[in-house]
Amino acid sequence: MPRLWNETIESHRREVRDAILDATAALVTERGLLSVTMSQIAEKTGIGRATLYKYFPDVETLLFAWHERQITAHLGYLVEARDRAWAADQRLEAVLEAFALITHESHGHRDTELAALLHRGEHVVRAQQQLTEFISDLLTEGARHGEIRDDIASDELARYCLHALTAAAGLPSLAAVQRLVQVTLDGLRLGR
Amino acid sequence: MPRLWNETIESHRREVRDAILDATAALVTERGLLSVTMSQIAEKTGIGRATLYKYFPDVETLLFAWHERQITAHLGYLVEARDRAWAADQRLEAVLEAFALITHESHGHRDTELAALLHRGEHVVRAQQQLTEFISDLLTEGARHGEIRDDIASDELARYCLHALTAAAGLPSLAAVQRLVQVTLDGLRLGR
Repeated sequence: MPRLWNETIESHRREVRDAILDATAALVTERGLLSVTMSQIAEKTGIGRATLYKYFPDVETLLFAWHERQITAHLGYLVEARDRAWAADQRLEAVLEAFALITHESHGHRDTELAALLHRGEHVVRAQQQLTEFISDLLTEGARHGEIRDDIASDELARYCLHALTAAAGLPSLAAVQRLVQVTLDGLRLGR
Repeated sequence: MPRLWNETIESHRREVRDAILDATAALVTERGLLSVTMSQIAEKTGIGRATLYKYFPDVETLLFAWHERQITAHLGYLVEARDRAWAADQRLEAVLEAFALITHESHGHRDTELAALLHRGEHVVRAQQQLTEFISDLLTEGARHGEIRDDIASDELARYCLHALTAAAGLPSLAAVQRLVQVTLDGLRLGR
């Protein structure tokens, strides 16, 4: 049964890959970006160095893979927030709140060396486009239902609210994050 | 008349310093951050290398001084925008528009190596605090006149609008920048 065998290998590879990424993230958090080595990552993952090199050629590639996984998880979280919302008019609010919470929780990552390195990646540009389109679609839907202003194109409004919500990174409390979401939504509602 | 003599020297030093900063900015724009040398800067300024070293010990210090001068000029521009506004209720809008324009014009600086280096400086943190306080004061004044919502503290509103307006960096036209300013202001006005 070669097919099942292949699937087993594939799933094993994914698990090892995930374990490597988790170990790297933990080490970078503990020790800082520049002091993490492939040997430490192999040790922390519980695999040999030779095996590690079969997955990733160097720490930088590994960090990019980890970051890409984070971004995919965040986008998935936003999609879930949208789909969980009971009524159509709560979707946008649920998604904006979820985005603000992600930003709030990653507070402080922004200005580090790691962030500077990672955000130079092509995958970040792609993810930002995806995110803008995702929000833009919700805004178009909202405008059709008369809940969102329609005097300004929805992709411009999407940029406005994504930028406004990045203020969540510096806010001291969840209550402040929720107030930010409300102010941002108010800007989207007026002018209907 | 030693005093006059001192003043002349002081003003000469300021002029040389400004000329050095201008030359550095021009060179970095032309050739990129990492390829600019002290010799090139001296040559472009039209002074000797020995003289240059009396003003700045290395390229990095020089770039920080240049950046600090830029920031001071930008804050000055915002103060001017405020003071030029005819009526009290136009001050906030004038300042937010000025800030959005500065952000729009510096589009693209953000993700460069130079920006990553400069924004690690302590002077950036200080400038951001000054900016937040400046906007916060205008919002407090606006709330007192009943033009700005007072259900949310003005420093939270200041962070909201400064972040929202950074979307100006990616906008394609001045008309789009002005629409962004209006949406942002609408968020500040509702809920009074």
